[in-house]
Amino acid sequence: MYELIHTDKNTGARAGKLRTKHGVINTPAFMPVATKGTVKTLIPEELYDMGTQALISNAFHLFLSPGMDVLRKAGGLHEFMHWERAIFTDSGGFQMIRKDFHFKITDEGITYKNPRDGKKYSYTPEICINNQKTIGSDIAMVLDECPPYGSDYSAVEASMERTIRWAGRAKGVEKNEDQLVFAILQGGTFAELRKKCAQELVAMDFDGYGIGGLSIGEPKEIMNEVLRYNVPLVPEDRARYLMGVGSPAELLEAIGSGVDIFDSAFPTRNARHQTLMTSKGNMDIARGKYAQDFAPVDENCGCYACKNYTRAYLHHLFKESELLALRLASIHNLHFIQSIVHGAREAITEDRFAEFKEKVLTGFP
Amino acid sequence: MYELIHTDKNTGARAGKLRTKHGVINTPAFMPVATKGTVKTLIPEELYDMGTQALISNAFHLFLSPGMDVLRKAGGLHEFMHWERAIFTDSGGFQMIRKDFHFKITDEGITYKNPRDGKKYSYTPEICINNQKTIGSDIAMVLDECPPYGSDYSAVEASMERTIRWAGRAKGVEKNEDQLVFAILQGGTFAELRKKCAQELVAMDFDGYGIGGLSIGEPKEIMNEVLRYNVPLVPEDRARYLMGVGSPAELLEAIGSGVDIFDSAFPTRNARHQTLMTSKGNMDIARGKYAQDFAPVDENCGCYACKNYTRAYLHHLFKESELLALRLASIHNLHFIQSIVHGAREAITEDRFAEFKEKVLTGFP
Repeated sequence: MYELIHTDKNTGARAGKLRTKHGVINTPAFMPVATKGTVKTLIPEELYDMGTQALISNAFHLFLSPGMDVLRKAGGLHEFMHWERAIFTDSGGFQMIRKDFHFKITDEGITYKNPRDGKKYSYTPEICINNQKTIGSDIAMVLDECPPYGSDYSAVEASMERTIRWAGRAKGVEKNEDQLVFAILQGGTFAELRKKCAQELVAMDFDGYGIGGLSIGEPKEIMNEVLRYNVPLVPEDRARYLMGVGSPAELLEAIGSGVDIFDSAFPTRNARHQTLMTSKGNMDIARGKYAQDFAPVDENCGCYACKNYTRAYLHHLFKESELLALRLASIHNLHFIQSIVHGAREAITEDRFAEFKEKVLTGFP
Repeated sequence: MYELIHTDKNTGARAGKLRTKHGVINTPAFMPVATKGTVKTLIPEELYDMGTQALISNAFHLFLSPGMDVLRKAGGLHEFMHWERAIFTDSGGFQMIRKDFHFKITDEGITYKNPRDGKKYSYTPEICINNQKTIGSDIAMVLDECPPYGSDYSAVEASMERTIRWAGRAKGVEKNEDQLVFAILQGGTFAELRKKCAQELVAMDFDGYGIGGLSIGEPKEIMNEVLRYNVPLVPEDRARYLMGVGSPAELLEAIGSGVDIFDSAFPTRNARHQTLMTSKGNMDIARGKYAQDFAPVDENCGCYACKNYTRAYLHHLFKESELLALRLASIHNLHFIQSIVHGAREAITEDRFAEFKEKVLTGFP
C-alpha cells in the first residue's frame, strides 16, 4: 500500500505514495484535524483547493456523537461529512486519558464515564477497531496507551507492553476490506523501549505505523533524537505517521528523519486564536499596528484570504469577533502548512530537501 | 436610475431595474445584512452563487469600527470587504437610538456616547452623508428619526418633521458622483403623517425612498395597511425600499404592494439560532428527531448545504457547537429567501404573482 518513490540523497527525507480506497496520498502529507467530522469552519472544497489529500477524525469522539448508529445509517463518515478523499481515524485513546472522562486503564481496555449520560463504559481494542470499521475510514489506528511525558521507565515499559498486547488483539479483529490498520509505536523517550515496541509491532505486520508519545511536552531536541533512531526501525515499505505535529520547524525536522504523514490541530487552533502563520514567522493579527496595514497577510501566499483581503480587514474581523475571521485565518494557516509540505515533497524528488528546509526556517525567528 | 419593467396585472407587484455604479439590481431584490462589513460567516462568492445582487452595511457601525480613516485608505468598503456588487449603507440612526449609546436627539443631530472611548459625540445628517461618501456605498440613506411603535401622534409628528428637516440638510451636502441618496419615509402608523412626510420628501426629489418605521413591533395587518397607502405616494420611477423585512410572508405581502427592495438580518440570525427556513415552514434542526434524518433540509432547495448534507449532519454540527453549522445554515436560509424573491420577479413578469404568493405561503403554517 505504501510505495517509496524517492529518498533525498542527503537526508532521510522520502517521497512516496500511500494507496487508499479513496485515492492515493502523495507523501509527505499533512492532515487537518476533523475530530467531530468537520475541519472547524471549513468545507471540503476549500480543503481540496489547498491540496489536502486526507484528514483525520477521532473514532472515540464520533462514537460519543453522532454515534455509530447514525454513521452506519449514513453510510459511513465520508458520506456523512461529504468528504471524498482519504480519512484516517485516531482511536481516541489519547483524548480519553487526557480529558475529563474519569478514565481507568486495565488490561481489558479503557473504562470511562460518558459525559452525556454519566454512565461508565469500557473501550477495548476490539471495540475501537469495530467502530472504525463502521466509520469506514481508510486508515484505522489501533488503541494504544500513551503515558504522559516524564513518566518513569517502569511505567512507560508497562504501558508499552500493554500497547503491544492491545495491538495484537486489534490485529485479531477481522478487517474491513480495503481499510488499512496502523499500529502506534510507544516507549516514551527510552531508546531501548522504543526499539522493543517497534520490533514487536513490526513483527505483527501492520499496514503502517504511527509514531506516538511524542510532541506531548518533551523538549524538541529529544523528539528529534527519538525520531532519528525510531523511524528507521519501521520497514521502508510502510508509511510512518507522526501524530500531533504541525509546526513548520517540527514538520521539516521529522520529514528529514523519514516521516511521511502528519496531523495537527495547530494551524486551525492558531487561526481561532488570531495567530496567522507566515513565511516570516507568526503574526498576531489583533495587534493595533495591523489596523491600517493594507498588505495581504503573507505576500508569498496564494490562499483565498491573501488573494482577496488585507491584514487591516482581518484585524477588523477579529476585533469585532466576526466568525468570518476564524474561517479566513483557518484557510490561510492550513494553506501555509500545506504549501510547506508540498514544497518539501518537490524538494525531496530533486535531492534538495536540506536547502529547502533551511530556506523555509530562515524566515522563522 | 430606477426603470420599471413590468407591473403585475392583478396586484401592485412590479419588476424593475435599479442602476448603480456596481451593476444593475433586478428588483424585487433582497439584501443580506453586512452591518460591520461582513455577512456573518460567509464570503462574497457564496452570496453571488445564490443570486445576491446587493448587500446593506451600516454607516454608523463602520464609523465606529474600523473607522473612516481605515475605509478611506482602503479605497472604500467594496475594496475593503472584497465585494464587487452594489452596497447600500444604512445611516445607523435606527441602531443608535435602540442600543446602549446613551443617545440624545436634538434638531442638530444625535448625540451618543462612543462605547470605545466613553466620550460624547454628535452624529448629524451632514456627517452621516459624508461618512457614506467615504464608505463609497452605491446607495446612501439619509439620517432619520424612527420613533418606537406605540408613540403618540404628537411625538410621531414631531420626529417626522425632524426627519424632513434632516433630509433637507442631507440633500444640501454635495453628492459623490454616481452615489444614489435615498430618503426615508416616516410618520408611524398615522395615515395623515405618512402622507405629509411622503409628499415633502418626494418634493425634494431623492433618488429613491426607504419606507421606515415599519416592522418594529406593530401587528402585521397594520404594516400591510400602511404599505398599501404609503407606497403609491412614491413616484413610479423611484425605487421603494422596505427596511428590515425578511420573513417570506411579509416579503410577499410587501412585494404585492409595490415594494422593490428589502433587507433583513432575519435569515442569518435564524440560521445562527438553529432555525432553518424551508418550503414547509421553519425547522428547529436541534430537535432530536433530526438526529437520524438523512434527507436534505429542504428537498426543493438547490443550495450548497441541501445538495451536500443531510439534516442529521446539520443536527450533529449544531449539537457539537461546530462553527460550520452556522455557515451551512446561513447559506441555506439566504438561498431560501433569495429563491422566493427571484421566483416573485419571474412571476410578476408573467402576471401570476398572486398565484405564486399563494403557492409559497401554503407551505407555511
